[in-house]
Amino acid sequence: MSKYNTLYNKIKKEITDGRLKYKSKLPSVRKAALIYNVSRTTIQNAYFALAADGFIISEPQSGYYVSYHKAKESNRKNSTRKQCILYDFKSGTADKSSFEFDVWRRYMKNALRQDSRLLSFGEPQGEYELRAALSDYIREKRNVVSSPDRIVIGAGHQSLLAILCSLTEKKSTVSFPDKSFVQGASLFGDYGFDVHYRYKDAKMIYVSPSHMNKTGDVMPNRRRIELVKHSAQNRSLIIEDDYESDFQYNSMPAPSLHALAGGENVVYISSFSNLLLPSIRISFMVLTESLAEKYKKNIFRYNQTAGKTEQIALCQYIRDGHLKAQIRKTRRFYTAKTKNFAGLLKKEFENAEIEISENALKIIMTVPFDKSPEIFETHGISVLYEQEENGTLKLIFNTSAVPQKEFYNAINALKTLLF
Amino acid sequence: MSKYNTLYNKIKKEITDGRLKYKSKLPSVRKAALIYNVSRTTIQNAYFALAADGFIISEPQSGYYVSYHKAKESNRKNSTRKQCILYDFKSGTADKSSFEFDVWRRYMKNALRQDSRLLSFGEPQGEYELRAALSDYIREKRNVVSSPDRIVIGAGHQSLLAILCSLTEKKSTVSFPDKSFVQGASLFGDYGFDVHYRYKDAKMIYVSPSHMNKTGDVMPNRRRIELVKHSAQNRSLIIEDDYESDFQYNSMPAPSLHALAGGENVVYISSFSNLLLPSIRISFMVLTESLAEKYKKNIFRYNQTAGKTEQIALCQYIRDGHLKAQIRKTRRFYTAKTKNFAGLLKKEFENAEIEISENALKIIMTVPFDKSPEIFETHGISVLYEQEENGTLKLIFNTSAVPQKEFYNAINALKTLLF
Repeated sequence: MSKYNTLYNKIKKEITDGRLKYKSKLPSVRKAALIYNVSRTTIQNAYFALAADGFIISEPQSGYYVSYHKAKESNRKNSTRKQCILYDFKSGTADKSSFEFDVWRRYMKNALRQDSRLLSFGEPQGEYELRAALSDYIREKRNVVSSPDRIVIGAGHQSLLAILCSLTEKKSTVSFPDKSFVQGASLFGDYGFDVHYRYKDAKMIYVSPSHMNKTGDVMPNRRRIELVKHSAQNRSLIIEDDYESDFQYNSMPAPSLHALAGGENVVYISSFSNLLLPSIRISFMVLTESLAEKYKKNIFRYNQTAGKTEQIALCQYIRDGHLKAQIRKTRRFYTAKTKNFAGLLKKEFENAEIEISENALKIIMTVPFDKSPEIFETHGISVLYEQEENGTLKLIFNTSAVPQKEFYNAINALKTLLF
Repeated sequence: MSKYNTLYNKIKKEITDGRLKYKSKLPSVRKAALIYNVSRTTIQNAYFALAADGFIISEPQSGYYVSYHKAKESNRKNSTRKQCILYDFKSGTADKSSFEFDVWRRYMKNALRQDSRLLSFGEPQGEYELRAALSDYIREKRNVVSSPDRIVIGAGHQSLLAILCSLTEKKSTVSFPDKSFVQGASLFGDYGFDVHYRYKDAKMIYVSPSHMNKTGDVMPNRRRIELVKHSAQNRSLIIEDDYESDFQYNSMPAPSLHALAGGENVVYISSFSNLLLPSIRISFMVLTESLAEKYKKNIFRYNQTAGKTEQIALCQYIRDGHLKAQIRKTRRFYTAKTKNFAGLLKKEFENAEIEISENALKIIMTVPFDKSPEIFETHGISVLYEQEENGTLKLIFNTSAVPQKEFYNAINALKTLLF
């Protein structure tokens, strides 16, 4: 085949495959000759043939563009493929009405005004001021005593766990509470760790004491103390993911493992996505003294992943007390919402067992059920479930993403499926 | 030792170590009893003793606070430890005058208004709209043909390389151009790869063709073609880091390896930190078809690290043509600055050899020199250097972080050290 033919087929395929989309501009003849390493005449001939066959159009004074008819818009397929979920009781997406957006916007705008800070690279460890504010905050709130130089900021837990993995001994063992911690477990696996579940003798033990499983159980104080003692004896490292510790209603707020262990052998990790905006990707971890030293020696290896604008905004937001206020508000709001939905369920499903999780974010409803649980999803209701052996089904509702005004409709939809 | 004594010593140490800072509030007696798992009386006694010895102060109606005199402010040490650099010719920090901050601020403010988008979690792969905009952009600019579903967005190159590592076979080999790619090399090392330098037979070959080394050399077209052919024969994967490809003046813009290879066996990776704000942590990579499929199958393992607000802003900023305009402006500005500084150097150091790098971002000056090159840093000039065997010194200046108005002072400082 001639060079011109090869090129013709190549570009044609890109258009019919949808990789080259409607209206995309093709490189100029001069540029294309350089790119494909062929003569300009070859390019010119291929372009002429493509235009003649209707794949591209020549716009005088401008260049060649992909024409409409032949370009399958492969991307459109992608965006319409999404399933139609009417009531999402699965995701932890925040309820719009619980977040004071205007306050956050004000802090972001202030941060955007700090030109000179935004023009420089950030500190790899995270902005010093934010680390200082976090250090004070967790000290007061969770009695986690640390200092800014032991705190590392990152965009999400995974970025931080990757740093932690790189600081610890290779080919060690790690234990997770159960298989739902997919992201953490696969990351450790990638780093060559042996991943176990509920394995007491692992060298690293990952736990989230305020959200132990999908039904939202909280670790009792007695077990917390046992775990801390065990890890001290065993010289293992606890990774304490303090997820949802702000949501504990039925029980007293439980102490953090970090505080119980006096800061020894515990790496504390937390974030703000479920308190503020899910789109704020800021997590932080408190390293032990020896890990912090190791981190400092290797700091040239790491880059900060969290955005600087949001770090600056969050720092001032915490300092001015808005984080605390927002947590109080969110807690009140979600508790009321959970109780409200649980009340409606109790009224409509008299034969069901209904209980609220310890963190008051989830409602667990157990009902007799003999159909396939997939019908919930196909009928627009996204909800976690567990099939029990005695022919009952356990449904786990998280109401945070469903607005209150849709509760009635959601319950009606449930009724048609459950009766 | 009594419980109260243990507690007293523990808190005292936290204060003298600087972990508990001046003005920090101690937990309430009730809360502390819960945290330390001792009686309230024990806490009360420990607090009394600490107050008596001047470590803490009781504020009526409020609680206990760390008092001033005993708290070594360990953090202050940290912030004053920084060296005093007057002229920074090393870092790539942007020059404030090259960036149109108001335009960016406008786009960020617009993005901040999209409440409902910010209230939901982002797509793990990155916002679809941004991926579509990037796909068009790199197609037109670098002839990198892809589609939104083959693009992955992340906060910085490291986040993306971590994903790439998790998608490829374990215990493989990777090659880097030289030892200056510390972050990438150590990441691959952590993932169990054998890291080599300039090793042609590696299964993965990391290159940055537009910035091959610290003197800013650009890979010639002939070598680009060789590399693409070699990797096709060897079935190795090229990781093309397109860093600084927008800065090529002396030579024609070189084609991307991705385009030369027809998109086969090349993962293309790029970012915007050096074109826009260093604080915008958005990188992206274009996966090959097979890697993209593998990624999709494992998508539940990954979280998006880049902030959503910035992704939304950047998408519209690109669509409206500001990225292209900013690149043109930055290029003109930096070229002028580099030429200007090179001119001043030529005038003042007649015995020196002075040349401008191919990407016009760096000036390489070779001078006879018999002192220790550390004197630059100790005299406030941060600059990369290489000691040559014939008693000369090669200095590599990057002028982007030094404002033009400080050029004269910087040259005067250099004169006192070089003569």
